[in-house]
This record gives sequence, structure tokens and C-alpha cells, in this order.
Amino acid sequence: MTRSAIRPPDPDLDLVLERVVDVPTRLVWAAWTQPQHLREWFVPRPWTVADCEIDLRPGGIFRTVMRSPDGEDHPDVGCLLEVIPERRLTMTDALLPGFRPARNPGLGFTAIINMEPEGEGTRYNATALHQDREGRVRHEKMGFHEGWGTALDQLVDYMQGME
Amino acid sequence: MTRSAIRPPDPDLDLVLERVVDVPTRLVWAAWTQPQHLREWFVPRPWTVADCEIDLRPGGIFRTVMRSPDGEDHPDVGCLLEVIPERRLTMTDALLPGFRPARNPGLGFTAIINMEPEGEGTRYNATALHQDREGRVRHEKMGFHEGWGTALDQLVDYMQGME
Repeated sequence: MTRSAIRPPDPDLDLVLERVVDVPTRLVWAAWTQPQHLREWFVPRPWTVADCEIDLRPGGIFRTVMRSPDGEDHPDVGCLLEVIPERRLTMTDALLPGFRPARNPGLGFTAIINMEPEGEGTRYNATALHQDREGRVRHEKMGFHEGWGTALDQLVDYMQGME
Repeated sequence: MTRSAIRPPDPDLDLVLERVVDVPTRLVWAAWTQPQHLREWFVPRPWTVADCEIDLRPGGIFRTVMRSPDGEDHPDVGCLLEVIPERRLTMTDALLPGFRPARNPGLGFTAIINMEPEGEGTRYNATALHQDREGRVRHEKMGFHEGWGTALDQLVDYMQGME
């Protein structure tokens, strides 16, 4: 692996969820990269994932459709930037698949999902990089910590059932 | 090399300069990736490159400062997306280094520089991907074809002198 171009998070601009979870790193990687697994945990219930498409390579699509309890669909399309198996997955909605700049990005952020073995489990770090302070505050108010934390709980429950 | 996530250009959104040049591919790659070479050809004269910084890896910086004949400096910061030696260099100003979404992108485009050996020379293809038709038209009116074509002529002249 080459040295990383990822920079340390900026507390003013970025949001970080870090936790050690009792799931092997290979299963955390599978949870994030295989649609049939991702659908089981990616959004806090009672929301569901109605569809998911992942083309696992830089420039590839990372698309999800989140369905509200009322049956309203919220599609989200992003572009994968880094695919480092069982180590890091990076994606952004600032670009469309194939690296085209997005005309109307959603929230406008880059997500960096880092994972590394720790004991029998995994040190999991999800970082969201924003354009500016306003973006970070908006994402925080939308419930970044609760939402991503609950989704991670669901990932752990689901993947522990797979072992 | 994994299969490419690059998509075919869209004539409505994208601009393409393709030409076979009489320079070996390894020198075209050097011209694009080593600041001391890039400074010699990257902007049509009498403009010059006053500074250049390249961190040659995905997420790394690609920064240039173009200086007008009046001495006015135009800095431009982008993020490298793909670094495939002697094959493809992809970068965007929609992201800052480290993959952070840019608050105020410049022109807002992704550049894909493809190269492959053809005879003793190189098939060179530079594609600019835009958000929308307006971006493509604006870039075209700014003189994409003349500007990138002249810069390529300069690359060829300079690199032929290196052989």
C-alpha cells in the first residue's frame, strides 16, 4: 500500500465516529461492499434500503435508495474514490460515477471508512469531510452521530449473526 | 490493472483532444507528473507556470500557479484521482487534496489524461468532464481546444529536446 493521502480530520469541518466493534475486519468490509449485506444495516430502522448498487473500484458507482417508513424513496448516488480491501473505502457525492463533477451534490461530503483489526474485532472509523463549517453543522444537526452510530449497531448485530 | 471505471465521453458535456504525438509514452508521463518538466510546457506562452506541486497518488495535490504576461498569478488546486503510470492521470478541481469537496471549484471539471504507445510515439487523449452543458460551453469558449492543443505542442517540442 502506498502512503496515504488522507489528511487528519479538521474538527471545524469534519465529523468522526470511531469505535472498536466485536466483528472481524473482513466482515466489516463485506458489510460495506456487498449490496445484499449493506441492505441489512445501512439505514437506521424503521427506514430500509430499497436498492443498492456498488461497482467496487475507483470511479465506480456507490448508489443507495433509502426508503422512509411512509414508502418515500431517497436515492443517493456517489463515486468511489479508494477501494483498499479490509482497510479503507472512500466515496463522495461531489462526483458522479466515472469521476464527473456532480451538478447538484446531495449533502456534499466525502466519507472515509477506515477499518483495522484490533484483537478479535475491528477498530472502525467513519469520517465525513465537508466543504465548509456550514456543511459540517448541517450534517451534525441531521443526526450524523446518532444515525451512523445506530447503523453501526445494526451492522454489528447483523454480522454477528453471520459468523 | 483493473477494468476501467472511466465512461465514454458525452459529446454534450465533455471536451476531448486526441492526437498521436512523436514522443515516447514514458516522456509524456514524465511531462505530466514531474513539476520541473510540467513548468516548461503546461500553459501556452507567453503565460508561464510560476509554481507547481504534485503529490503523485490518489488524493494527492495537483497545484499549479499560472502567471499572465502582466505578472498576475492564477493559482489552481486540484485532487488527483487516478495515478496509473504511463497510462492515465485523472484529477479534479471539484475536490481539494485529501478528497475534501471544494467549496468554490474553479471551472469545475475532471481531467482524464490517457496515453498509450503507438509506434515510437504516443496516442494522447485529454478529456475534460463537466457538470453540465453550460460548463462544457464555457470551457470551450475559454479556448479549450486551442489552449490544450498549444500546450501539447509545447510538451512535444520540450520533450523532443530531452531525448
